[in-house]
Amino acid sequence: MKAITSRDNPLYKRLKALAGSTPQQRRSGHALLEGLHLASAYLDAAGQPETCVVTEGALQHEEARAIVARIEDKRVHTLPDALFGQLSSVVHGVGMLLLVEKIEAMLPERVASTCIVLDGVQDAGNVGSILRSAAAAGIQNVFCAPGTAYAWSSKVLRSGMGAHFLLNIFEDAEPADLIARLGVPVTITDSHGAKALYDCDLSGQLAWVFGNEGAGVSQAWRDAVTHRVTIPQPGGMESLNVAAAAAVCLFEQCRQQRGN
Amino acid sequence: MKAITSRDNPLYKRLKALAGSTPQQRRSGHALLEGLHLASAYLDAAGQPETCVVTEGALQHEEARAIVARIEDKRVHTLPDALFGQLSSVVHGVGMLLLVEKIEAMLPERVASTCIVLDGVQDAGNVGSILRSAAAAGIQNVFCAPGTAYAWSSKVLRSGMGAHFLLNIFEDAEPADLIARLGVPVTITDSHGAKALYDCDLSGQLAWVFGNEGAGVSQAWRDAVTHRVTIPQPGGMESLNVAAAAAVCLFEQCRQQRGN
Repeated sequence: MKAITSRDNPLYKRLKALAGSTPQQRRSGHALLEGLHLASAYLDAAGQPETCVVTEGALQHEEARAIVARIEDKRVHTLPDALFGQLSSVVHGVGMLLLVEKIEAMLPERVASTCIVLDGVQDAGNVGSILRSAAAAGIQNVFCAPGTAYAWSSKVLRSGMGAHFLLNIFEDAEPADLIARLGVPVTITDSHGAKALYDCDLSGQLAWVFGNEGAGVSQAWRDAVTHRVTIPQPGGMESLNVAAAAAVCLFEQCRQQRGN
Repeated sequence: MKAITSRDNPLYKRLKALAGSTPQQRRSGHALLEGLHLASAYLDAAGQPETCVVTEGALQHEEARAIVARIEDKRVHTLPDALFGQLSSVVHGVGMLLLVEKIEAMLPERVASTCIVLDGVQDAGNVGSILRSAAAAGIQNVFCAPGTAYAWSSKVLRSGMGAHFLLNIFEDAEPADLIARLGVPVTITDSHGAKALYDCDLSGQLAWVFGNEGAGVSQAWRDAVTHRVTIPQPGGMESLNVAAAAAVCLFEQCRQQRGN
């Protein structure tokens, strides 16, 4: 275990540059995982991180010590609270951060099982929530079309709560390229006029496409649609938050597939 | 229509103080509604705002002009883009803001229909998403227990997308007081071991209690529980985002109540 004591430490400077910039996270291919839950989920799924930084204070916590004990000693660095604070995006965090390479998934030749396409979902909280619902529903593959919030950004990782390590996440999936590989029908939600979700047969495999919070699903995906479904809304609102709508669709599919 | 030209204008100073501080919004009993969608939803549901401020640029848009035309001329103030920018929490907004009194709902003597209790839900995006799902599901009453994000804050209003004007929202609902008024069974989600949501009879009226993102439902509400339900999750995740779980529960109830 090494100690970082100065803000001029090269590793610290690198972490600080990453922490302050989602574009920098994207360019570098690295991600920062903050907190015990994400660290533990990463170690379970992916093995050793490149680096772990932890505050002296965090090492007082038994749960934090147990996580540090799973990481090779040479990868662990302690640092003062004041330095850690500038890396952290969490107000009352525990003081642990992993630096990891993002997990790259190769676009499959053919997509034959239920998957999700995020078509310009721009809010990081929504992307994280949908990833979490997808992992809970047992889905493997999530494709992020251009315009979608960067899935390995700190904010999406935080709201994904470890879902990233259970999924294959494909960034920058171009519609034409992906559509050519899809062996499952393309399904979107439409707030009016389509068949009620509960009356649709969701027992087979589907590609669910969820669109931008304002503009909805883009024309390229609309042109590829096989099924349109409506979530019946007895109240006066016209639409749901995209992550709420995604959860309703995915778990209605789970309900229909129970016992299959 | 009056013009605000200086940052020393008393109305502008008041708006700026409100815009920068959720506690200030809460203390004042006033709310700021930004953008055309919220403005339009408010006018439909509640009538005249106290004040509307709009940029010269926004008045070039037909849709914005149509909204301004619905507001009494003496309540409308124009202001330069640079001044508006300091009131705005939206990056590419249209440049319209309503100042309104928050709509106060009186705690009913008896709660006999399906309602929602937010028991310390702290993320503003989650609170807004749940309000939106509740309004879409046709629910009338939402009770916010202490620790829940302030429902009339700018961020919750933005993610609620107008749901606030279709619901009765009760702030600072103390558990003991509310529980004494409930004439419907208290229902919570539990990630393990309870009856599967789809096997529960949700055709009657229920009080859904959704808890804090980290700690879950508080002891006071746990002690009052009648039904515990589990959302079966075939994947490896252990839980859903609270707003996603709420949407799944509310729309499963809608599904079961179809045709009633």
